[in-house]
Amino acid sequence: MMNAIIFGTIAFDAIETPYAKTDKIIGGSGTYSCFSASYFVQPQTISAVGYDFPAEYIQKLQDKGVDIEGMQIKQDEKSMFWACRYHANMNQRETLVTELNVVEKFKPVLPESYKNTEYIMLGNGDPTLQRSILEQLNHKPKFVALDTMNFWMDTMLDELKKTIAMVDIIIINDEEAIQLSEGEHCLSKAARKICAMGPQYVIIKKGEHGALLFSKDKVFSAPALPLEEVVDPTGAGDTFAGAFIGYIAQQDATDFETMKTAVIVASAMASFTVEKMGTEALENLSADQIKNRILKFKELSDFKL
Amino acid sequence: MMNAIIFGTIAFDAIETPYAKTDKIIGGSGTYSCFSASYFVQPQTISAVGYDFPAEYIQKLQDKGVDIEGMQIKQDEKSMFWACRYHANMNQRETLVTELNVVEKFKPVLPESYKNTEYIMLGNGDPTLQRSILEQLNHKPKFVALDTMNFWMDTMLDELKKTIAMVDIIIINDEEAIQLSEGEHCLSKAARKICAMGPQYVIIKKGEHGALLFSKDKVFSAPALPLEEVVDPTGAGDTFAGAFIGYIAQQDATDFETMKTAVIVASAMASFTVEKMGTEALENLSADQIKNRILKFKELSDFKL
Repeated sequence: MMNAIIFGTIAFDAIETPYAKTDKIIGGSGTYSCFSASYFVQPQTISAVGYDFPAEYIQKLQDKGVDIEGMQIKQDEKSMFWACRYHANMNQRETLVTELNVVEKFKPVLPESYKNTEYIMLGNGDPTLQRSILEQLNHKPKFVALDTMNFWMDTMLDELKKTIAMVDIIIINDEEAIQLSEGEHCLSKAARKICAMGPQYVIIKKGEHGALLFSKDKVFSAPALPLEEVVDPTGAGDTFAGAFIGYIAQQDATDFETMKTAVIVASAMASFTVEKMGTEALENLSADQIKNRILKFKELSDFKL
Repeated sequence: MMNAIIFGTIAFDAIETPYAKTDKIIGGSGTYSCFSASYFVQPQTISAVGYDFPAEYIQKLQDKGVDIEGMQIKQDEKSMFWACRYHANMNQRETLVTELNVVEKFKPVLPESYKNTEYIMLGNGDPTLQRSILEQLNHKPKFVALDTMNFWMDTMLDELKKTIAMVDIIIINDEEAIQLSEGEHCLSKAARKICAMGPQYVIIKKGEHGALLFSKDKVFSAPALPLEEVVDPTGAGDTFAGAFIGYIAQQDATDFETMKTAVIVASAMASFTVEKMGTEALENLSADQIKNRILKFKELSDFKL
């Protein structure tokens, strides 16, 4: 089975929606991405947790086939904790608590066994840390995907640009694309500006309006499944990212056609995540469920000429 | 050649964008819809103009093959005139002038030659007038499409609902769908509520995010072509409506598959309209241009599994 390195937090989440509320559950971008990628490849996590992280949560990751050699377990620190509350129609999210704890001083260290991995997902985080992962590899990898957010554009734009120059694809939302392109509201122009910073491809996620995939000279529009009920949007983007790198690594191909299908597969996986609280939906999918969901995207967008 | 009745205003428009400004040019929803439909069928206009409407504009319609028997030319009234200004990114439009003139007291009268037409586009307008067209037909037509807007929901909701109950499809934008469904922000739920009012199908246009087509149990997502330059958005919706009914009438079929392709054809035609000022782009398209634009939509949304 192919491997994919997944850099992203493994943490405690507490989620509150108008209809439900969780205790401290397993969460973090790395968790969603690893669970999601696990349906396609063996994910190799790069993360850190504290002494308070339950063995059963680590077992959950291992049960999904996640290689945890790159997970640092710090005996003198607490795990990261994030709490949020969603309002009315789930479009607005309020962060209630962010305790970085173990993540604050975390320096990623690649185990020897990760250093030849060809497919890498750099989840949202400090761009210097994202870059340090690439620098620890034994070789130039086949494909590196990058997620980032406004915070890093506001506070570390120069560092972020250095990291962007090293990756093959950047996966961001429409607002982030506008900001990164210095205010370009036309998304195809924004994508062109971002491609000029280095990446071969850009994915711009538009939430309920689907996603656009751009190369220097091509564009693909992926629809969003019109969902009747969104139970919990947490982790949808991280699920997308994990499935995306997982599918690419499984196919071991980086051409535009493969990217297109990967966007659909990633959208399908994200559509599961939002149907249940936390990682619940993502923990127990069958191959048939995934296949049928992907077919729904085909049905949704296919037409005869 | 098949016919399609097009009910919609034929008028003077004056358009101002940050980059260009027109004099009084030919405009109105009926003009855009007729020009657009003319590439697929013979449009039969139901409209009224005044003594001041230039013969060369009537000739333009006839040159596109529009049957003008249902156009009333009122010698004692002036033509409708509408002026608007677009701001910065073309998303905001300010109406500067609306002189209804001849349209104010207009009562549609169907010529005998229209009374057996099977495909009908009821452009945005007073729902009692829209209904009066259906009542003048010799028969129950094969397919009636309806466009409407917030104004009629605000002022004549009961009349509008009576008209909606008589049509096969309603073509509206997302805001209008939310209002018509009494505040349902989930578009698939909104569509279901609207279907329950009578129509077999609902199209919800989302501007730069494409369009959704719903039947009672199916859904289709049409992408929007990512355009780099929108010169003038005027008439895009009317172009969509005209091409939609034109394609359906040309195919002489009303199944869901035909609706899907019609949404793509309609989106393709609308994408031409916004590339030039007024009706200019729509007046001189070749069959090859249209075919290639439709193929672009296929390329944009097609993926391999």
